[in-house]
Amino acid sequence: MGAPGREAPALLDDGGRLRDLRGVVDDIDGAFLAADGLARLAAVAVDDLPVLDRTDLRVGPPVRPGKIVCIGLNYRDHAAETGAPLPSEPVVFLKAPDTVVGPDDTVLVPRGSTKTDWEVELAVVIGRPARYLTSAEEALACVAGYAVANDVSEREFQLERGGQWDKGKSCETFNPFGPWLVSADEIPDPQNLGLRLWVNGRLRQDGSTKDMVFPVAEIVRYLSWFMVLHPGDVINTGTPAGVALGQPDPKPYLTAGDVIELEIDGLGRQRQVVGQA
Amino acid sequence: MGAPGREAPALLDDGGRLRDLRGVVDDIDGAFLAADGLARLAAVAVDDLPVLDRTDLRVGPPVRPGKIVCIGLNYRDHAAETGAPLPSEPVVFLKAPDTVVGPDDTVLVPRGSTKTDWEVELAVVIGRPARYLTSAEEALACVAGYAVANDVSEREFQLERGGQWDKGKSCETFNPFGPWLVSADEIPDPQNLGLRLWVNGRLRQDGSTKDMVFPVAEIVRYLSWFMVLHPGDVINTGTPAGVALGQPDPKPYLTAGDVIELEIDGLGRQRQVVGQA
Repeated sequence: MGAPGREAPALLDDGGRLRDLRGVVDDIDGAFLAADGLARLAAVAVDDLPVLDRTDLRVGPPVRPGKIVCIGLNYRDHAAETGAPLPSEPVVFLKAPDTVVGPDDTVLVPRGSTKTDWEVELAVVIGRPARYLTSAEEALACVAGYAVANDVSEREFQLERGGQWDKGKSCETFNPFGPWLVSADEIPDPQNLGLRLWVNGRLRQDGSTKDMVFPVAEIVRYLSWFMVLHPGDVINTGTPAGVALGQPDPKPYLTAGDVIELEIDGLGRQRQVVGQA
Repeated sequence: MGAPGREAPALLDDGGRLRDLRGVVDDIDGAFLAADGLARLAAVAVDDLPVLDRTDLRVGPPVRPGKIVCIGLNYRDHAAETGAPLPSEPVVFLKAPDTVVGPDDTVLVPRGSTKTDWEVELAVVIGRPARYLTSAEEALACVAGYAVANDVSEREFQLERGGQWDKGKSCETFNPFGPWLVSADEIPDPQNLGLRLWVNGRLRQDGSTKDMVFPVAEIVRYLSWFMVLHPGDVINTGTPAGVALGQPDPKPYLTAGDVIELEIDGLGRQRQVVGQA
């Protein structure tokens, strides 16, 4: 919570009150997660922490990621709507970590863009280094927790500008993230979470992580053979059907003034007003 | 210089001596560059700084990048050797910033890899935020300086594993970087630099930045329309012909024990011994 780049840490207690973590931790970052910070936090007497007034309080991203790894075409229905075959192994791309904004911050349509699109995704936050893992158990032990992400994408930049997908994935403000980092122990089954997204009140995506082609444990294990995942790294695990790209023409791409709302069971809700860069 | 992750800043004086910058700056990072740190450094009385003994001193990367943006197929001869058409606009992908190691650190062949390849590249270090720039002059004003990079690449992971190129670009140790950040004022023409790479003493790449399809100023201007470049970000601007992928079969991909040496006019030299992950 707080102004962009100067956020202070806070937690949500069981009663839904926001509690101030200043004085307990400096920041929720890779170093904090690597030092078993979440376990240490679990031992804090929550009732003794100051309660914060949430009125007018901006919520920032719950972690400042080191890198953001994205998995493409990871839901059967989304692969079908984009006309792509189902991948035989995970499709991997990267997103610049400086695209991260708070869950309710403005999303900017880039200058020259006519195809800015939404993607509700389950974000996985890494808590322990993941390198050449061999089992699903090892992989899940590297997960600190989960969060909501909007993997905003510019389809012309991504698909029609002669390059790799990254060109349409790293525009300014293209990764609303949060509100909460929900620790892994609170999500017993990451493959049974409903995820939904609305644009201007109309339900556009309504899926379940049950329909992932590659589940979270397999994604983490697989990635660890291509790169080292470090504490504080984030994986956007793909989006279900219902993006603008998958709609009949004229496709309902985002324009200034649109309102995006998204949520995942147990992980909270985001709301962005779209602006123009 | 110093152990990985605990490097201290130093500079090379006009006489080729290494000078200790501890006590003058904490770190050469994005915040330092954003605060016009290089201009402030230029005002320091270099002769008063302690001289360091370079024997047995490890050199780390000169900057810890926020993000690494890479330009693909940016030399005519390299595009030809890989069988790719000349791009009509820059091909853009990302590399995880945690792949950066020092210029003489070990490069690891990933487990399961048979196609680990080299790429000498001119790295551009950003010093001022670059966002929607409209001229080459504006673009060059955002460049803090230049350095040598080896954009190590696993060609099977990059091209044959059903995904985006990023999958073969972000393996552990895949971005030797440095030794020096040479400030932009010392490189009057970034489009007139020879760049060379040897494997086990055999010259494999011998090009010039004259042959870039898109020069540095155009790359920075172009990228600024797809993402914000921040101080401390790094752009790997592409590689000339002579990579293993472009050789006749059997292609001379890297294996443990190989020695890679590379240099760019005015930017210094790297030497890596290849190991096995």
